[in-house]
Amino acid sequence: MKQRGVTIWLTGLSGAGKSTITEALAQKLREQDYPLEVLDGDVVRTNLTKGLGFSKEDRDENIRRIGFVCNLLTRHGVFVLVSAISPYREIREEVRGKIGDFVEVFVNAPLAVCEQRDVKGLYKRARAGEIKSFTGIDDPYEPPLNPEVECRTDLEELDESVNKILHKLDQLGYLR
Amino acid sequence: MKQRGVTIWLTGLSGAGKSTITEALAQKLREQDYPLEVLDGDVVRTNLTKGLGFSKEDRDENIRRIGFVCNLLTRHGVFVLVSAISPYREIREEVRGKIGDFVEVFVNAPLAVCEQRDVKGLYKRARAGEIKSFTGIDDPYEPPLNPEVECRTDLEELDESVNKILHKLDQLGYLR
Repeated sequence: MKQRGVTIWLTGLSGAGKSTITEALAQKLREQDYPLEVLDGDVVRTNLTKGLGFSKEDRDENIRRIGFVCNLLTRHGVFVLVSAISPYREIREEVRGKIGDFVEVFVNAPLAVCEQRDVKGLYKRARAGEIKSFTGIDDPYEPPLNPEVECRTDLEELDESVNKILHKLDQLGYLR
Repeated sequence: MKQRGVTIWLTGLSGAGKSTITEALAQKLREQDYPLEVLDGDVVRTNLTKGLGFSKEDRDENIRRIGFVCNLLTRHGVFVLVSAISPYREIREEVRGKIGDFVEVFVNAPLAVCEQRDVKGLYKRARAGEIKSFTGIDDPYEPPLNPEVECRTDLEELDESVNKILHKLDQLGYLR
């Protein structure tokens, strides 16, 4: 039977744990030989969205472009893992509508926790006014209303988060 | 056996016949159930490269971005048909190097023939100075030195062009 593809879209604040979950999930799926692509922030910025900024318009164009590529891959049976803050609900829903096979994962930790982690030192710089339009500080984040999965990374272990996603994928019929 | 993907890259002047060949080739491949995507000019401009212009830098970024998407699809077994003027040799070679499974089709008709066809009225506008940086008029076109296929659309019928490409794909082991 032909492999059914799916876009697994991780949304959440900077520092919420999107990349960590993405990497762990990718490893699990690779071990089981699922056709896989990971579109994380750096790959996307370098190859698809160079020159875009952080206005709502540019953020939306960024997400739309990632969504376009996800759609191409998903309809050819690929599992596409996207890790993107993607703060606006409407554009996430637009992408979901286009792709169809779309699993939204809300990677959720309270802002205070993300800021305390501050792995990349970005919150500090945003608080100091050195970075403008920083999601959670001076730019909005609209949480998903009905995500397929929510990972509370301040309350659960990485394994739990990954297993919740795998379980949902299985429930939805994407796993063999 | 797993389907082997390939990027089939049609380069040539505006009006040389790239889109016509692409459509006819796509139909043939679809009839035989090959997994297929067509990245033609409009699709690409709308979804991947909005905002890019016609400077060498922007043209190169345009081609690099298309190449990135081709690479993702090709390595998952998809036949990707690209129709793009792509006037610069170096960036075409860069994309070829990244993708590996890459068949370059030089869609070749003399400038005078393309200009006489002028399907979209673009040459007329370029000659009148209404469009700047128009390939073949006031912007260069660097023909491929060793394309896998050359289609002389002023000398051969559409069927011949399409069959030459199919024959080459077969020779290279991409067809079942």
